[in-house]
Parts: sequence; C-alpha cells; structure tokens
Amino acid sequence: MKGHIYVIGMGPGKRTGMTAEAAEAVNACDVIVGYTVYVELIRTSWPEKDFFTTPMRQEIARCRKCYEMAEAGKTVGLVCSGDAGIYGMAAPMLELQREYPEAEVTVIPGITAANSGAAVLGAPLNHDFCVISLSDLLTPWAVIERRIRCGVQGDFVMAIYNPSSRKRADYLRKAADIMLAAGAEPNRACGYVENIGREGTQAVTCTLAELREAKVNMFTTVYVGNSRSFIQGGKLITPRGYEL
Amino acid sequence: MKGHIYVIGMGPGKRTGMTAEAAEAVNACDVIVGYTVYVELIRTSWPEKDFFTTPMRQEIARCRKCYEMAEAGKTVGLVCSGDAGIYGMAAPMLELQREYPEAEVTVIPGITAANSGAAVLGAPLNHDFCVISLSDLLTPWAVIERRIRCGVQGDFVMAIYNPSSRKRADYLRKAADIMLAAGAEPNRACGYVENIGREGTQAVTCTLAELREAKVNMFTTVYVGNSRSFIQGGKLITPRGYEL
Repeated sequence: MKGHIYVIGMGPGKRTGMTAEAAEAVNACDVIVGYTVYVELIRTSWPEKDFFTTPMRQEIARCRKCYEMAEAGKTVGLVCSGDAGIYGMAAPMLELQREYPEAEVTVIPGITAANSGAAVLGAPLNHDFCVISLSDLLTPWAVIERRIRCGVQGDFVMAIYNPSSRKRADYLRKAADIMLAAGAEPNRACGYVENIGREGTQAVTCTLAELREAKVNMFTTVYVGNSRSFIQGGKLITPRGYEL
Repeated sequence: MKGHIYVIGMGPGKRTGMTAEAAEAVNACDVIVGYTVYVELIRTSWPEKDFFTTPMRQEIARCRKCYEMAEAGKTVGLVCSGDAGIYGMAAPMLELQREYPEAEVTVIPGITAANSGAAVLGAPLNHDFCVISLSDLLTPWAVIERRIRCGVQGDFVMAIYNPSSRKRADYLRKAADIMLAAGAEPNRACGYVENIGREGTQAVTCTLAELREAKVNMFTTVYVGNSRSFIQGGKLITPRGYEL
C-alpha cells in the first residue's frame, strides 16, 4: 500500500497562523519532514510524531525522501513556512511525482508572507499586485529585473520576497533603482515587515527613496505601493476605489 | 470606552480554512458584520454572537456601521471571504479610520483564492506572479488591460479574480486576446478552479486558447502560467527552477 504525501503550508510561523485544515493534515501524518526550524514548531504541538529534518539547500533530496517513505506505506507531511505553493516545495514535489506515480500528493495552502505582512502593515495589497523574489539563486537577474520593470509599468503594488542576503546585500537598492528608472516616484508609498508572525514583528512605512537605503534581511517582506497607495496613521493603504 | 474592530479574512469558505488566529478574533467579538453568506458560516460555529448583515454593494455603509458600534464600546468583527486585504474591506476600513480616530482596527489575514485555488490545481504560483481582477466596477478597463499586458511582458504567472459576471460575460475572452496579442502562446499552460473550499470544487487544466472559450463565473479563479509552466498528471505546475 502506497502512502500519502501532504505538502503543508504552515502560515507565518506561529501555531495560530495555521489553518484547521493544515493542523488536521499534520494530525493525519506518521512522519513530519522539513527544515529544522519549522519542524521544531510542529514538534511543540505534536510531540508524538516521527520527525525527519534536513539542512537547507537539500530541497530535492527532502522531496525524494518523502516519496520513499510514502512508498513504504507512511503518511508523510512536508511542512513549509507560509504557503507551500509560493516559492515553496509544492512544485518540485509535484514535478517529481512522475518518478513515483503511485504516491498521492495533496497541497494544503497556508498564509504566505505577502498576505500576513500586508495585514501588519495595513492594506497595501488591496488592489492588483505582483509578488517578486529578488533571489537569483534559481532565477537569472535579467528576468528579475524585467519583472520589476513590468511591475512598475503595470502600476502593480509589488510584494518583494528575499530582498537581501549576506551575498546580496545591495539587491533591494538595485531593485529600487530599477523602479525609479521605470518611472516610480521617489516619494512612492512603501513599507516593510520583519519577523512576521514571530517575536519582534516590526512594520515600517517609508518612501521609495527611503526604502532604497533601508537595512533589510532575508526574512523581511517589502511592499512598494502603486501610484495611488498612501500612508495614513502609520498604515500603508492601497485604495480599492470606493467613494468614501 | 472605544471598542476594537477586527477585519477578519475567513479563507476559502469552509470552517477548516480559517486560521486559529481568525477563530480567536471571532471569539473576541461581540458582534459579527458581513455579507449574509459569510455571516451564516460564522453563525453555524458561533451561534451565541450578535450578527449584523447587509446586502452586497453597501460596503462603505457596512464599514461605517462597524465604527459606530465600536464607538458604542462593542468589539466588532467584519468578516470577509479569503483575505480581507486582497480586494477586501481592509483598505476602506483603514481609510475611514481618519473619521473615527479613536477606534482600533486590526486586520487578520486569511487564505486568498489565489492561494487556495492554486493548491487545488497543483502549484501554478510557485514563481513570481501577479494577481489581477477583471472587474471594472471600480477600475477603468484601460488600467486592467495595461496590467494584463505587463503581466505577460514580465512573464509572470497570472491569477485572475472576477473573470466574469452576468454583465461581463466576455471579459475572460477579452483578457485572453490581450495576452495572446502581448506574446503569450496559444498553448500556454492555464487552469481554473470553481467553488474553491466549497461543495463542488472543480479544477480544470487547459491551454490559453481553450481558456479563451471557457465558461467561467464570478466565483472562478483563473490561472495563466508563465512561459515555463506545464501540465503534468492533471496538475498545473510552475517550476521553481531546481535541477531534478
């Protein structure tokens, strides 16, 4: 008998950010697989489960391990922060299914950082928006640059993931320069949120010119408003268009 | 004493799609406000609450009612399907706060249809994406058209909200024509999901040419892949870029 794999989005990183559906999926699993930090969060609430942790940068090995355990009859939960389908492991897991056609895979959605950070900051995504990762580990920078430019030209609100890392300390500044060159005004309403759903959550509103100078890290989610976004009472708001 | 307003995203429409945080916010409220259909969902689980329902198209009156009740000392929950900050009531509620500066407003995020539908369809949003509503009730069609074009030019995956209604039966076809004119291939991998999180959830994968002819309604969420998206085993997948 082949087992089932659940790819589970855990939301912003605290137990109460999970949906009941995600908790039910964890309940149904024999073994929980993931990065050490997320597995520890699960272990606190479900100490009786089996756990299998792998270090970062071994994503595909981790997916294969899930299939191997499923083929041995286990029900397996691969846990991801946020939503498993947004820069997460849902796609590679489903891609690999061609090698393991008998295992069943179910993706359980979770609240991704764009949404959980937006709620902290106000309502920046309340109109058409795009989500762009500045990580060029798996994506050529030229593609990222084109997307930033099209995001501005389309007057989308932009939610930026992975705005910085040790090796890419200046990427947010580079992204801001592309936005300015594409026509975004230096006083465009922006903001960023650190440690969403964790201790020390911090929300900052600022202009695009100030964002260019901001110190952010890989856990920061950055928001660049559209041409109608504004800051009011410390909140970043993109109007939906109602007459108030 | 002024009360507190929670703007609560309920997720895809079933009780298990809510987060624990959203359920805690409902617990904390004296009165729950919203469209009849979402209020009924809450009433099933929290029959002891007070409820205040308003018909559609009275969004701003509903927000003002929340502030009036908060000023009378009540803790008020405005419930929205999906995420309150994605085409929801978070922005107008926060905008109105300038008229009611003493009430406190907290936005509780929920899983928006882009994410919950994506999980049903596979992993279509597993790379940079944009979310566009085809409703021109509050947005000029020229703005929507430009965003669709920029979405294709940026090679974003696109999640389309409000793809159709009785008065706009041909909008998805118009959107598909803009995409094709902007360079998306007729065999671009696409899909759509109906009744996400409700009875009769249905996921369909298709090409962009087929999507152009699809019969969808205002509750359908539509996905147009990027140039690397593909359909495998009935799932719409946008690869993250890993070597498998």
